[in-house]
Amino acid sequence: MTKTRAGGVTNFDAWKHAYAARAENLAVSEVRALFSVVSRPEVVSLAGGMPDVAALDVNLIDKAYASLMANRRNYALQYGGGQGDLRLREQIQEIMALEGIHGSVDDITVTTGSQHALELISDLFLDQGDVVLVEAPSYVGAVGIFRHKEAQIEHVFTDHDGISPEALEETAERLLSEGKRIKILYLVPNFANPSGVTLTAERRIQVLEICKRYGILIVEDNPYGQLYFDQKPPKAMRSLDEENIVYLGSFSKILSPGLRVGYVLAPPAIREKLVLANESAILSPASFAQMLVSEYLSVADWQQQIESFRQLYKAKRDAAMQAVEQYLPKVATTRPAGGFFLWLTLPEGLNSKEMLPLAVTELVAYTPGTAFYGDGRGQENIRVCFSHPTADNVKVGIERLSRVVNQQIELIETFGKVD
Amino acid sequence: MTKTRAGGVTNFDAWKHAYAARAENLAVSEVRALFSVVSRPEVVSLAGGMPDVAALDVNLIDKAYASLMANRRNYALQYGGGQGDLRLREQIQEIMALEGIHGSVDDITVTTGSQHALELISDLFLDQGDVVLVEAPSYVGAVGIFRHKEAQIEHVFTDHDGISPEALEETAERLLSEGKRIKILYLVPNFANPSGVTLTAERRIQVLEICKRYGILIVEDNPYGQLYFDQKPPKAMRSLDEENIVYLGSFSKILSPGLRVGYVLAPPAIREKLVLANESAILSPASFAQMLVSEYLSVADWQQQIESFRQLYKAKRDAAMQAVEQYLPKVATTRPAGGFFLWLTLPEGLNSKEMLPLAVTELVAYTPGTAFYGDGRGQENIRVCFSHPTADNVKVGIERLSRVVNQQIELIETFGKVD
Repeated sequence: MTKTRAGGVTNFDAWKHAYAARAENLAVSEVRALFSVVSRPEVVSLAGGMPDVAALDVNLIDKAYASLMANRRNYALQYGGGQGDLRLREQIQEIMALEGIHGSVDDITVTTGSQHALELISDLFLDQGDVVLVEAPSYVGAVGIFRHKEAQIEHVFTDHDGISPEALEETAERLLSEGKRIKILYLVPNFANPSGVTLTAERRIQVLEICKRYGILIVEDNPYGQLYFDQKPPKAMRSLDEENIVYLGSFSKILSPGLRVGYVLAPPAIREKLVLANESAILSPASFAQMLVSEYLSVADWQQQIESFRQLYKAKRDAAMQAVEQYLPKVATTRPAGGFFLWLTLPEGLNSKEMLPLAVTELVAYTPGTAFYGDGRGQENIRVCFSHPTADNVKVGIERLSRVVNQQIELIETFGKVD
Repeated sequence: MTKTRAGGVTNFDAWKHAYAARAENLAVSEVRALFSVVSRPEVVSLAGGMPDVAALDVNLIDKAYASLMANRRNYALQYGGGQGDLRLREQIQEIMALEGIHGSVDDITVTTGSQHALELISDLFLDQGDVVLVEAPSYVGAVGIFRHKEAQIEHVFTDHDGISPEALEETAERLLSEGKRIKILYLVPNFANPSGVTLTAERRIQVLEICKRYGILIVEDNPYGQLYFDQKPPKAMRSLDEENIVYLGSFSKILSPGLRVGYVLAPPAIREKLVLANESAILSPASFAQMLVSEYLSVADWQQQIESFRQLYKAKRDAAMQAVEQYLPKVATTRPAGGFFLWLTLPEGLNSKEMLPLAVTELVAYTPGTAFYGDGRGQENIRVCFSHPTADNVKVGIERLSRVVNQQIELIETFGKVD
């Protein structure tokens, strides 16, 4: 048998014949592949998607830890139940009430970040060839999961008011007429990743009605809902319906992603299966992280902490918008009312993926729009994440980006697009 | 559409038609279902499989936390890489060296407990109908994963020296002649869960040779290896071969399962896919838990802590063995040289699963042997977990168990087996 060198570059895979069919669908995420670049201190990263954890009041974590060790130490260090800590689920109930949701603690399952909730839901529902409808563009981590499950990913036209109900209906009709099974509509209705747009209240009702009519399960992913800049977004879709929606929430953006604590609220029959799937995959969600979050929610003024995040990210959003206006006059952008992201549209002929190496030589990183499509679209788009750098560095990053973009625009205006 | 009541007992599932085929294979684990019983304080639980976390020196956790927050706070609170923290992987390398393993940090992936490593490996390799070979009996959590992947589970004869090489070869020949694809041999070579037996050094070599010959990937799961009572077990199988073995390790039994930190050492090509699968499922392993473990390994005398666990569990093993000898003279038991479990064999005609409700009325819980088989076997077996109760309570529990068992034996001796 050919010898592979441990830790070395792989040029031979002795097990290539043995992988499951679905393993072929694991691809290096364009976002994750940027991590090595991003970690160089001289590069301003507008890539990531990371919260500004340095802005978290660390004394609150210390207080939470002290309370945890004083009161629940041996539970925190031990295995727990597959559904998650009851006290934390009660607190999650209160947090969801801020989004207009009234759900039972019995129907909440705590997960390893909301990413794992989406993984478990997808695993429960998606057979090979099943269709998942998503926004255009959609969250890269969701697209990756659906691809891994061998699902067919269909992007539905999305504008500044979120996903289009008319396009949703047309897409559903077309796919059903082709004999497809449409299982899931996956949505980030508030301050979407990557577009930054928010689904209007009116469209939420329309989208729900359409999905009910076609028997499509809605997966409503809401990591950014509390990070609004001026006014609250419309109530969660889950506040309108409890039977046709699986709702995902997370502590990653309002506390810390390093804890990996998210949650899912699902109709009882689905929730029963979710708990079993969670147990099968990881035995039980991490007691220590769950209980640390629970103590934090108990001892800290967490709503005030969120308010300070709102102000912080709003200032960064403003810095980003101003810089785009100033340095990228020929580039269109969304204007997010919350969350972490601007979605830029470049003039025709520019290719954000091909441009990325040039940007990195100018010491700025971003995520090309193609990462957020399952079908190769997004070449003219850039996701700018303004949440992690300082406001000043957001400006610096966009100014650096503009050198590359404006140079490319000039080239095309002078010579036309080179194919 | 029929209305379901949030949080209520489910008698109707509106989404029953929509589940993926594999979702049908999620079953309530017989072990996990015991959790509600186990939590009643008057019940002595010999079920579980839980370490005695109260015996962990809590000052060491405090020191690790303080060091973490002083030195790596913003990294610990942030997303990390999909492969896991490099410093922790270097420390894992040292821990694996205690088992005779010399692997590259590049080939280690940190996972959400070793359970998730097994889930990811299984997802990478198992198509529907593929065969997984396991010990007889085998770890319930592994059997659950393989069933969920729609694999065919084949138990291979196992005795006091571990899995039988002759039986392994016969089973492989038989299955191949039936046209089956055998993908994986899953093993717990040291102080196995549930049997407590250890695979001899000689058999390790033979099993490896057989698997190489038939192209079967070995998944070597070693959560208990450092918890030996007298002498070290043989070196890990991974110390003999780096190409045909995926090695799983965990901090659950030598530190805390509530942190959910495990790891997997895999050949480079498999490891590349594992990292992608890990990212797809959870984005990145929890930075906070990983770095807390890393600080613990850095600031604490963790080898001394493990030594004190060895003494603790040895005393509990002795208490369990004495109690079985004293109270259950007609019951056979394995004699584990480490780990958490005794495996009891009841006299013919007794059924451990049917007996469980009687045992619970006597205020003792255990896991019936059927949990550890995918084929209904194990009715005459009981797994006794001695690691979690005090040594005194281990004795009390076995004495209570003996009332039920000996009464059943008398009934059968008097009236014969009632079918």
